[in-house]
Order: sequence, then structure tokens, then C-alpha cells
Amino acid sequence: MTSSNGAQKAPAKDPWQLPDVSGLVVGVLGGTGPQGKGLAYRLGRAGQKVIIGSRAAERAQAAAEELGHGVEGTDNAGCARRSDIVIVAVPWDGHGKTLESLREELAGKLVIDCVNPLGFDKNGAYALMPDEGSAAEQAADLLPDSRVAAAFHHLSAVLLQDPEIDEIDTDVMVLGEARADVEIVQALASRIPGMRGIFAGRLRNAHQVESLVANLISVNRRYKAHAGIRLTDV
Amino acid sequence: MTSSNGAQKAPAKDPWQLPDVSGLVVGVLGGTGPQGKGLAYRLGRAGQKVIIGSRAAERAQAAAEELGHGVEGTDNAGCARRSDIVIVAVPWDGHGKTLESLREELAGKLVIDCVNPLGFDKNGAYALMPDEGSAAEQAADLLPDSRVAAAFHHLSAVLLQDPEIDEIDTDVMVLGEARADVEIVQALASRIPGMRGIFAGRLRNAHQVESLVANLISVNRRYKAHAGIRLTDV
Repeated sequence: MTSSNGAQKAPAKDPWQLPDVSGLVVGVLGGTGPQGKGLAYRLGRAGQKVIIGSRAAERAQAAAEELGHGVEGTDNAGCARRSDIVIVAVPWDGHGKTLESLREELAGKLVIDCVNPLGFDKNGAYALMPDEGSAAEQAADLLPDSRVAAAFHHLSAVLLQDPEIDEIDTDVMVLGEARADVEIVQALASRIPGMRGIFAGRLRNAHQVESLVANLISVNRRYKAHAGIRLTDV
Repeated sequence: MTSSNGAQKAPAKDPWQLPDVSGLVVGVLGGTGPQGKGLAYRLGRAGQKVIIGSRAAERAQAAAEELGHGVEGTDNAGCARRSDIVIVAVPWDGHGKTLESLREELAGKLVIDCVNPLGFDKNGAYALMPDEGSAAEQAADLLPDSRVAAAFHHLSAVLLQDPEIDEIDTDVMVLGEARADVEIVQALASRIPGMRGIFAGRLRNAHQVESLVANLISVNRRYKAHAGIRLTDV
């Protein structure tokens, strides 16, 4: 595109130039579950200020103490209020209800949904299809005053929580509508050694990213692994 | 599980012990499109006997001649009839109709669906949801006398077709119901230098694997890449 005064198009922005997010406070709703706890541990260990939230403040405090690295714990509302970025790591089962109850506290915040709507039966895991299309789109619907992104779906809670492991060898697919928000999430993921945050589309393409966890569960079973994802040629 | 006569459970089968598929003839329906042509080229170059199919035999023959490596071309029905394994690389648009018309020729064959049902608009690509759940499940519905698997969804047609590239740095997620069939597909993928075929679940979990291509298209745009997927810790 050339403007009417003949100015040239600006050069494409370097997709690896990401903002400094080291001063932002990160809340983790559902921070006492394996995924939330693992993420809180990795981010705290990377030097991020982390507050985990739970329905019961005492449970959050107990989990925070266990994690160390300056992680604090409180109830979900306090966690949301005190954080700049809020990671949603609650079970899919209570996802909508929890977010709805925190609408006010989450207003103006960057909300990162990492929930995988899955069902389980004797043949293993399978994708559930939320009415809104995905957990992330449900969050966006329920939180009109928040900025919603999606990321951190494919991480092994076992590896995240293992203090013997120094690097998490994986890419984090980040989805969102606003480039500035997506870049904050990418930068946050990239603070964890071994991880890269990579833009991977808009929220309407979140469903397949969320439900790919069903496939990773099959992989883990067959290969006795904690599978993660890398994007090649990127 | 211990049987009543006290025998021990058999040791878990080595998931990397795959059958020898070097003698099987591979057909590629839609072999004149970029994806089909790329796959035919790589498999032919790896020493596999490949027959590409197209609605018009002459177009298939012309494409085959271009590819070399002993690749032959004929019409879709002839391709299906002469092959042991048939890769379906037709556009999603004609997927159901093409398979329905080849039901007889495909009876008894191992059919590998690699079709990605996607829509496109000004914001890029997005997942379509087939009534059957996925292209692979549609194939299984339409071909009750065939064995249907799904694989080869995330390959860059550009890289596949580039003769300067010796290795394709990617894993191939293979989905299917019968372990023996899945292993044949894994073995076939693993013949291409750089590729590993990895079991990644049953056909009911094919939709997210097929539609993840929409995310890879976003990645490719942002990073000027030909993104592929690797599974870590496997």
C-alpha cells in the first residue's frame, strides 16, 4: 500500500521483537491444579511476580509456599484484582462460571486462557466443542471488558513441576485478536527457558489448538512420553 | 493383567518397531495438486512405487513424468485399483464425491486421508466442521470396506516439491483405529528422510489435527516460514 503522498509502506515488523514484560504481575486462576501450579512455578522461577488464585485463599497460600520463588496465593478475586495478566487454568467444568463471577475484577486485564475442553472415556480423551467454539472464545464472550488471548495449552504439568528440569523444550502457540496483546503473551512464554511464544492465529482458530491435547495424550500413552510441540522452520 | 494360568502380561510392544513397507504400491488421489504431487515426489524419491491419480489420466501422466523416480500416472480409478495404499490428497470440496465414486476400487485397501477442511476469508484460514466430524471420519463413513487412517496433514507443499531440499524436518501425526494399519502409515512416513510417523490417536481426534493447518497458515504469514510440527520428548 502506498499512501497518497507517495510514502513507502513501512517495513514489516520483526516478529521476534517482543516487549519487556518482566515488571508485570501474573495471576494464575486455578493455580492449585497441576497445570496452573506448574506454570506459576516456571514463571516465578524465571523472575516473574506471580500470584496464584483459588476458590479458597488458604489452599492458594499453601500451594504458593510450596512453590517458593516469591509466589503468593489468595482467592480468585484478589488474584485477578492484583494482577496485570491473568492466566486461566481452571478445569473446563467450572470455566464459564468462574470467569462470569470475576468479570469486574478482570476488566481491563489481559486474560490468557489455557483451558482444554476434553472428555474422557475408555478409549481415552476426545475434544469437546463449546457452544462459543472454544474455551478462549467463551472467555472472550463472558469478559467483554478484558483482552483475551489463548496460550500454554500443550505443556506437560509433570515437566513444569519437576524442579530437576531446567528447560522446557517446547513452543507455545499464542492466539489472539490484538497484536500488542499477543506479543505480551509471547514475551511471557519466552521468559521460561526452552520455550518460545509463537503467534498462531486468531481466537476463531483456538479450538483445534485446545483440543490437540487429546492427541498428545494418545502420544504420551503410546510412547511413555510427556509430549510437547515444536514448530519447525520458524 | 495376569491370565488364570499365571502367565505374565506380554511386554509392551516397541512403538518404534514398524513393518517393512518398501514393497507396497502407493497411490495418490489428487496427485496433480501441490500436496499430492509433493508427497508423490518424496515417496518416489525414497524408493517407493508411486502411482498418481487424477480425474484426467493425461494430466496425471504429465505430472508423473515431471516428478521422475518411477512415478506413474493414470485416472483415479486405475490408481486406486493398482495400489496397496491410497493417499487421498484431493481438495476438500470434492472429497466426499470422489471417495464415493471409488468405493469399489478402494475396497480392502488402506486409505490415508490427508485432507484439511478449511475455509478462507479476508482474515485468513479457518476450520470447517464436516458433519462426520472430520475429513477422515467422512472417508471412513463412505468407505466401509476400506481401512481408513489419517496422516500427512501438516506438510508444506513448497518444501515437499523443492528438489534442493534433502530432508523434511517434521513429524507426521498418524491417526487410525487399527494398530497394524497405523504402523504401516508410520513406516511409510518414516521412509522420507527427516520425517517420523507418530501415532497420535483415533479418528475421532482427527478434526483438530486436520484444522491445525489454519494455525500453521497464520504462523507462515507472520514468520515468512513453511512451518511444520515436531513432537518433543518422543
